[in-house]
Amino acid sequence: MTYFTPIEENKAKGKVKRVFDNIKKERKITTIPNFWKTIANDPDTLERTWNSLRDIMKKGSLDPLTKEMIYIAVSMTNSCEYCIRSHSAAAKKKGMTDKMLKELIAVVGMANETNRLVEAYQVEVDEFLK
Amino acid sequence: MTYFTPIEENKAKGKVKRVFDNIKKERKITTIPNFWKTIANDPDTLERTWNSLRDIMKKGSLDPLTKEMIYIAVSMTNSCEYCIRSHSAAAKKKGMTDKMLKELIAVVGMANETNRLVEAYQVEVDEFLK
Amino acid sequence: MTYFTPIEENKAKGKVKRVFDNIKKERKITTIPNFWKTIANDPDTLERTWNSLRDIMKKGSLDPLTKEMIYIAVSMTNSCEYCIRSHSAAAKKKGMTDKMLKELIAVVGMANETNRLVEAYQVEVDEFLK
Amino acid sequence: MTYFTPIEENKAKGKVKRVFDNIKKERKITTIPNFWKTIANDPDTLERTWNSLRDIMKKGSLDPLTKEMIYIAVSMTNSCEYCIRSHSAAAKKKGMTDKMLKELIAVVGMANETNRLVEAYQVEVDEFLK
Amino acid sequence: MTYFTPIEENKAKGKVKRVFDNIKKERKITTIPNFWKTIANDPDTLERTWNSLRDIMKKGSLDPLTKEMIYIAVSMTNSCEYCIRSHSAAAKKKGMTDKMLKELIAVVGMANETNRLVEAYQVEVDEFLK
Amino acid sequence: MTYFTPIEENKAKGKVKRVFDNIKKERKITTIPNFWKTIANDPDTLERTWNSLRDIMKKGSLDPLTKEMIYIAVSMTNSCEYCIRSHSAAAKKKGMTDKMLKELIAVVGMANETNRLVEAYQVEVDEFLK
Repeated sequence: MTYFTPIEENKAKGKVKRVFDNIKKERKITTIPNFWKTIANDPDTLERTWNSLRDIMKKGSLDPLTKEMIYIAVSMTNSCEYCIRSHSAAAKKKGMTDKMLKELIAVVGMANETNRLVEAYQVEVDEFLK
Repeated sequence: MTYFTPIEENKAKGKVKRVFDNIKKERKITTIPNFWKTIANDPDTLERTWNSLRDIMKKGSLDPLTKEMIYIAVSMTNSCEYCIRSHSAAAKKKGMTDKMLKELIAVVGMANETNRLVEAYQVEVDEFLK
Repeated sequence: MTYFTPIEENKAKGKVKRVFDNIKKERKITTIPNFWKTIANDPDTLERTWNSLRDIMKKGSLDPLTKEMIYIAVSMTNSCEYCIRSHSAAAKKKGMTDKMLKELIAVVGMANETNRLVEAYQVEVDEFLK
Repeated sequence: MTYFTPIEENKAKGKVKRVFDNIKKERKITTIPNFWKTIANDPDTLERTWNSLRDIMKKGSLDPLTKEMIYIAVSMTNSCEYCIRSHSAAAKKKGMTDKMLKELIAVVGMANETNRLVEAYQVEVDEFLK
Repeated sequence: MTYFTPIEENKAKGKVKRVFDNIKKERKITTIPNFWKTIANDPDTLERTWNSLRDIMKKGSLDPLTKEMIYIAVSMTNSCEYCIRSHSAAAKKKGMTDKMLKELIAVVGMANETNRLVEAYQVEVDEFLK
Repeated sequence: MTYFTPIEENKAKGKVKRVFDNIKKERKITTIPNFWKTIANDPDTLERTWNSLRDIMKKGSLDPLTKEMIYIAVSMTNSCEYCIRSHSAAAKKKGMTDKMLKELIAVVGMANETNRLVEAYQVEVDEFLK
């Protein structure tokens, strides 16, 4: 059984081609990563995901680098290798140093530990936090 | 069955008292939150967790606020209510505005969606990411 | 260290052989998949899992295809590659088209996003839902 | 600390009001559920989430009821009480009987068990599934 | 909407009554806990779950207390409050002291941290572990 | 992009060398596993993680083998292949037989199923468990 194969750029047509072109222009890249080529099997999902991601990740009260690091933290917690690697690469382009990534990882590790300690000890929410 | 009850400050002795005093001094707070009071049932876990957390969350290449936001992102992904509330309160003290929190949440939601899309489509890691 | 190796069909004896024969007959297949061959290292787990799965997945108020799609949705949320691939293959045999799978994935992605939004915003259960 | 409070309908303005009106019209309901009222704290997230959800959940190759049941299966796997309750209510409106829900739950339980068996035994993907 | 209400013992009939009687006899208890009363809404799930649980949790190469502690560790990782509380109560009956529970929790917390460090650093499996 | 490469023992200096030496001595091993070599990219994380792990996993009210089995149960629930393999190897050194591992897996599988049944049926905590 073949599961899903990426849609190569030279096979892209219509909505898929338009989104691919937009991704390359906005991201200033020349090759479409596998994530987009694979979800392009469903052009509606491709378009909706790209539009949402582009809007959410743009500069706001948080700068794009902080947003990328939050993305990485979620991806590490969910054990998504592709997501860790692709968003780390994106974050490095935006200025994340190796030292910053290591500190991020230390926080992610610790948060996963204390999240479980809270559950394990069934800690009650403090009055001042309600 | 009583599960674990928090160790109140006036009952704290020895190692537990020393850690409680250190938390209040370092955090500049006057009351110990339930998390610390509850894990104080195991003084070794209390001491080790506090020492680790204090070291990990201090200013480094990442500033303390960014670290708090990473902590919140993990806690949201793990559905830990106590952790979301306590680290949001801590982040607000360090300057997180409501607008920043909302943007953080949007990133967390999106990352959880695309993490699953990657799994669902079984996206292969690109050569340039290996 | 060798972890667990699959029990090949020509090595199957007793309880394992009986379950393998039953799987091939019920599922109308000629080769036992790795899942069953590997958990056959524990014949009791093999037998119990097969009996439960066969009973749960048979036609009831829900048809077998809908049940397979629910299985896939859980497996995607848990990031289980083997489970995604094997249950997608099973669902395709039962009539799932590629278009149906893509719609299923879109729902799974969206549900994972809104599940986290609910936690992140700490949404209260509405009175009419209690 | 107040975390987020729902935006009541009589306080809704601009984008939030337009989305609320659209939800009530499309869903044929007279009251906005807490999920929408709470994420309305971020009007962009409200609008994007509603648009995505409306598009994804509409009739396609899969009927709306099947999509709701997939949503429930993900929500149970992620332990999201609000999501389980609200999508079960929505599914019941679309024809899900109690018997169907019980069968759905049995599948979700079983899938969570075998997903872990696959990991625990480190089952290799069969050649015919690649 | 009423979701599921527990089946009280005086309402139990047929298969449900037989399973309830068996649980009380085997577990040497006089009252059926909510878990069994609630899943009794689906008598097949009740019977299958009880039979599986009884077989899996009985003395084997591992003693029943060790099995209960493994159950607790999984339940803490999955943040299942009911499961943590009920299996801790069961483990205490079988001899688990508070000190043992605290050590168990420390291991669970640490394992959740290092599991994420492994993902975050993308640690390769050593040759000697393959 | 190169992500993180393990720090080989002949490149280890200062804090990293001291921790590596301590690991080899305490664990009575001659080669440092990839986990430690990879997190050695952050010497502080290496030192803190090793100190915590060594303290937590030592004999207490629970023996080291039981602790390893709890570690494995968490790692299976989190789908961490490296962690499953390395802690299974460690547990085998401490006396875990294949039969014990299979029983452990059966408990882990069952716990993951009933954890979800509890959520799916929204089981209320019994009075006697509060």
